[in-house]
Amino acid sequence: MGRVTAQLSVSLDGFYAGPRFDGPEGDWMASAESAGFFRVTRWVIDAMAWRERQGFAGGEQSTNSEIIEEHFAAAGAYVMGRRMADGGEVPWGEEPPFRAPVFVVTHRERAMLGRKGGTSFTYVTDGIASAVEQARAAAGGKDVAVAGGGTLLRHVIRAGLLDELELHIVPVVLGTGLRLFDADLDLADKEAIELTPLRVVPTPEVTHVRYRIDGRAPLHLDNRGAS
Amino acid sequence: MGRVTAQLSVSLDGFYAGPRFDGPEGDWMASAESAGFFRVTRWVIDAMAWRERQGFAGGEQSTNSEIIEEHFAAAGAYVMGRRMADGGEVPWGEEPPFRAPVFVVTHRERAMLGRKGGTSFTYVTDGIASAVEQARAAAGGKDVAVAGGGTLLRHVIRAGLLDELELHIVPVVLGTGLRLFDADLDLADKEAIELTPLRVVPTPEVTHVRYRIDGRAPLHLDNRGAS
Repeated sequence: MGRVTAQLSVSLDGFYAGPRFDGPEGDWMASAESAGFFRVTRWVIDAMAWRERQGFAGGEQSTNSEIIEEHFAAAGAYVMGRRMADGGEVPWGEEPPFRAPVFVVTHRERAMLGRKGGTSFTYVTDGIASAVEQARAAAGGKDVAVAGGGTLLRHVIRAGLLDELELHIVPVVLGTGLRLFDADLDLADKEAIELTPLRVVPTPEVTHVRYRIDGRAPLHLDNRGAS
Repeated sequence: MGRVTAQLSVSLDGFYAGPRFDGPEGDWMASAESAGFFRVTRWVIDAMAWRERQGFAGGEQSTNSEIIEEHFAAAGAYVMGRRMADGGEVPWGEEPPFRAPVFVVTHRERAMLGRKGGTSFTYVTDGIASAVEQARAAAGGKDVAVAGGGTLLRHVIRAGLLDELELHIVPVVLGTGLRLFDADLDLADKEAIELTPLRVVPTPEVTHVRYRIDGRAPLHLDNRGAS
C-alpha cells in the first residue's frame, strides 16, 4: 500500500486507443480513436465490477472482473489528465465510479468539484509531482492510482514517479493510434527503463501483466554468447 | 504441425532491437541497435538450449530453455530475411543452429549454400509467399518458422501468411528502435488484426505469450456500457 500505481488496456502493438480524434466532441463516438479504445477496453465493459461501479446492469463475474475490483479496492486517490477528466465529466454523471478524491493535472484554475459517493475532482495547476503528492496525502495509506490518460501516464513514468504498472494486453493489432510508450520518454542513447514482472494472469480475452518499475539503467554491451 | 509460425523477443514497448544502425558492419556490436537487441535476447543467450545449438558451453536448464527447445523441435524449415541471413552468415559459421533448410527472401540471385548439420540456405527471389511455399514443401509436415528479422516477419503477417506468433515480452522499455508492429501493416481505417492467446508462460526474465492469428476484422462501435 502507499504505492503509485497505474493500469492500462493496450493492444498487442501498444495502443490504448485509435488515432487521436480532434473533431467536435459529439463525433468522438464514431471516430477511429473511439473504435480502438472500445476494442481494448471491451473486457472492462463486459466485467461485472466495472458495470456495478457505473450503475449498469449485468456483466460477467470473472477473473477479469476480479482484477478490476482489486484495482478499485487498492486506490485511495486518483491522479488524472485534463483531457480524460473533461471527457468523463458528463458520462460519469453525478456519482462517478472512483469513490475517492481525484486530482486533475491541468493548466486551468478551477474550484474543487464535489460529487456523490465519495468522488471529488481537485484541479492541480502546479504540475504532476504536486498532484501525486496531494493524492498521496489524501489516499490514507492506500495506493495512488494514475487513472490516465496515456499521455499523463507516460509523463508520470518519465518523471520516475510510478512504482507499479499493470498492462492489460489485448490480443488485437490496431496498427495505428495512441501509444503509451511513445517517443517522449526522454531516454538517453543506450538507456532503458527496467521492470520486473510481479504477476501474470492469463484469460482468453486479455493477458494481465503487473510490473514493478525498477528505474532507468544503461544498456551495456551484453554479448554473452561466446564466453 | 504444418503451421507457419514465428517468435520474437520484444521489449515491453515493442522493440526487437535499438534504432537501426547503418554504419560499417564491424561497428554494429557497439551500436545502440545491438545494445537493444542484446537486452531483449538476453534470456535466449543465457539458455542452455540456445548455447548448445551454438556450440557454446554453459547455460541454464530453465523454462526459458525449454521454450527454445520446443521451437527448434517444431521447425522443419525456416524463412528468413536477407539482412538477417547476411548478418548471421559469418557468426553462425560452418554449422549454423537451424539444422534444417532455410529459405532467404532476397532480390539477389545466389546459388544454394549447404552447411553442416542439416542447414542449407536457399535464396528465393520471387517473393515471400513463394519462400513460405518452398519452406512448407521442405518441412516434411513440421512447422515453417519465420526466423526474422522483424521486417520480414511484419511482411509475412501483413500478407496473411502467419498462423501463430509467440512474443517473448521482456520487462524493459527501450523507448526507441526497431518495432515489429510498425506503421506498414496496411490496415484500413477501423480495421484490426484479431488474435487469440493460446498459451502464457511467465518467468522472471520474460513473459512468453503464444497467439493464434485469426485475421483481419473491422472495428465496429462497441459501446456496451449503457445497454
